[in-house]
Amino acid sequence: MGRWEPNTRERLAKAALELYSERGYEQATVAEIAGRAGLTERTYFRHYADKREVLFDGSPVLQKLFVDAVEGMPAGAAPIDAVAAGLDAVSAMFADRRAFARQRQAVIVANAELQERELIKLASLAAAVAGALRSRGVAEPAASLTAEAGIAVFKVGFERWIAAGEERPMELLMRQSLDELKAVTAGA
Amino acid sequence: MGRWEPNTRERLAKAALELYSERGYEQATVAEIAGRAGLTERTYFRHYADKREVLFDGSPVLQKLFVDAVEGMPAGAAPIDAVAAGLDAVSAMFADRRAFARQRQAVIVANAELQERELIKLASLAAAVAGALRSRGVAEPAASLTAEAGIAVFKVGFERWIAAGEERPMELLMRQSLDELKAVTAGA
Repeated sequence: MGRWEPNTRERLAKAALELYSERGYEQATVAEIAGRAGLTERTYFRHYADKREVLFDGSPVLQKLFVDAVEGMPAGAAPIDAVAAGLDAVSAMFADRRAFARQRQAVIVANAELQERELIKLASLAAAVAGALRSRGVAEPAASLTAEAGIAVFKVGFERWIAAGEERPMELLMRQSLDELKAVTAGA
Repeated sequence: MGRWEPNTRERLAKAALELYSERGYEQATVAEIAGRAGLTERTYFRHYADKREVLFDGSPVLQKLFVDAVEGMPAGAAPIDAVAAGLDAVSAMFADRRAFARQRQAVIVANAELQERELIKLASLAAAVAGALRSRGVAEPAASLTAEAGIAVFKVGFERWIAAGEERPMELLMRQSLDELKAVTAGA
């Protein structure tokens, strides 16, 4: 193995998820993950701090995409439309990753510690989106409420997207979920 | 100290919160908590499993109040109105506990483990409220979306209620937050 390691992070993430799925998150070791990826344990720790981080590699990317989309909307756009743009942006990121997302979700729901980390990820995302809305001049509590509504749509839309047999694109399911949220808050 | 210990749980919870506030959650010991409450460590462990549980004593009560209120609404009520009834019910529970809630929140935000537990509490509450809505015949994803919207209002309304200098009742702040959520999802 040379010093040049193409797609090292991706190979490690793929190997980790496979092992966690096959043997359980608790049982798999970093040595096994690195071995399956044809890399060393030392290389693993150059990329990820621990066994858990490899499952949350996409979180900063997800958050940046969402926030950038919110901030990039025209000045006059309604806050909920800025959040809708964020949902579109993250849907594009997930587009070809449904199989990966399903496998990852199965690992997460089987482990309390991973579920906690996932909840923290969503809470950080909500806080970041609220911050982006405030930077657009949206006052509180509207900014936090709109952000929380957006994360609620993301959670529910994501669960629908990874449901067994579901084949419709995430973007469509997110938009449907947002429309449904609008309908229920309007008293439908 | 006799076998009859009036308000034991409350005394322990009060002593724990005082110690966590004064010395930090990590530093305080169960022996100190029990001592301050004039009770034994053994008594503490008859009531709470660990140092953390004493801060989440109210969670099952909160969840039951919310769910019972949702389930108790007339059959024809809109899902969002059932959630509004839940918010009213929990507001009544908190009415005279603002000082306690402020002190508790300061302890929670200072500790990552406690923040995780708080997020899990809110996620469980959302799941329970969604279940109560489904039992009223609300289909998915409307049930989950309405429940998540309700928890978003609870989170934001609660933060407003415990903000420094805030004196308005929780019920009012929850209703205002719900109205604000309706306004933002309607594109205001």
